[in-house]
Amino acid sequence: MAQEISISVIKRLPRYYRFLENLKDNGIVRISSKELAERMGLTASQIRHDFNCFGGFGQQGYGYNVPELYTKIGKILCVDAGVKTILIGAGNLGKAVASKIFTRQSGFKLVGIFDKNEAISGKIIQGIPVRHTNYLENFCIDNQPVCAVICIPSNDMKELTDMLCRLGIRSFWNFSNFDIAMAHPEVLVENVHLTDSLMTLSFLTSSSKEELEKISSAE
Amino acid sequence: MAQEISISVIKRLPRYYRFLENLKDNGIVRISSKELAERMGLTASQIRHDFNCFGGFGQQGYGYNVPELYTKIGKILCVDAGVKTILIGAGNLGKAVASKIFTRQSGFKLVGIFDKNEAISGKIIQGIPVRHTNYLENFCIDNQPVCAVICIPSNDMKELTDMLCRLGIRSFWNFSNFDIAMAHPEVLVENVHLTDSLMTLSFLTSSSKEELEKISSAE
Repeated sequence: MAQEISISVIKRLPRYYRFLENLKDNGIVRISSKELAERMGLTASQIRHDFNCFGGFGQQGYGYNVPELYTKIGKILCVDAGVKTILIGAGNLGKAVASKIFTRQSGFKLVGIFDKNEAISGKIIQGIPVRHTNYLENFCIDNQPVCAVICIPSNDMKELTDMLCRLGIRSFWNFSNFDIAMAHPEVLVENVHLTDSLMTLSFLTSSSKEELEKISSAE
Repeated sequence: MAQEISISVIKRLPRYYRFLENLKDNGIVRISSKELAERMGLTASQIRHDFNCFGGFGQQGYGYNVPELYTKIGKILCVDAGVKTILIGAGNLGKAVASKIFTRQSGFKLVGIFDKNEAISGKIIQGIPVRHTNYLENFCIDNQPVCAVICIPSNDMKELTDMLCRLGIRSFWNFSNFDIAMAHPEVLVENVHLTDSLMTLSFLTSSSKEELEKISSAE
């Protein structure tokens, strides 16, 4: 990318990728920015703006070639990178999240799963044994994972993230409420705060129609 | 709320609530906007602006009373509303998500769990039996749930959401990739797109330091 780019544009790329995959799977080869916009609930000019951030992918008057655009956006998202990843916490959430990582072209490759619950140690999740967290440090030294997925409560997170950052982890998919980015501004963090999401829905669900009309989508 | 309010402010409220709960649990009774800002990685003026959207909670020179502010924000978020909720999909993700709803003061009350997998039907999750989706329609007619949590893939979502909306569901916590809001603009939808989140992290993880410096946090 040549120019400065906003994080919102980046966060929209996976959605384009999903829509294009769907179009491709339905045998659609060419689409105009107008039609893509209608299907995605965006405007054609927003789509053109977003794609221009990465050099633009269309051809005047032709529209977009769907399989080509799909491949290009996939490359930008580094879906084939296979970044070495460990999962910490093998409860229901950890198992659900692992299945997302195992999805073809997630960009990540799960190499180790850890849990402090001894009853789970030794179980196999999609071919990978669950190890006790006691082995985490040595595993990281031996295997040099780059990304850690955090599916445990916030309690022991300070010590854990300190250790993981020291061992070379430089990106986190964080499902805990611990603020990793504040403790370690040097690493990349993508947070999924399920409780925050649920509370936002609680606010909206319990608001009256008149109150909802006062909510603007402006940031 | 009196004036127009942006969705971003609303989305920050759960985070304030979490931080205040933590302060309260640590016995902190009073906090200045400056100190709260530092702990949360925000600016004091942003905090004052956010709270002013709801009438303002502070007292000049005193700061905020932590337990009071916690209670007030909880009321705004309707954490005690106990909105009748059904969960569709009782796999790992569904079970993980159910535990969030069962959390004290989530704003929601889980009244039914459904899955089309007959092997799961009859199992009990935190006191609630998993019913086959064949019973979904009658259950909704009898129990009038307001919110549905969607933890199934996108495949059958069109028919399912059409039915749920017809049966009176007016708010969705949506973990599928199906765009409920586009199909049913009349309902409230809070999406959690795990794959999109993971792909955003993939992009960031595979970007060089120079590329990361070009990403602005502006929307």
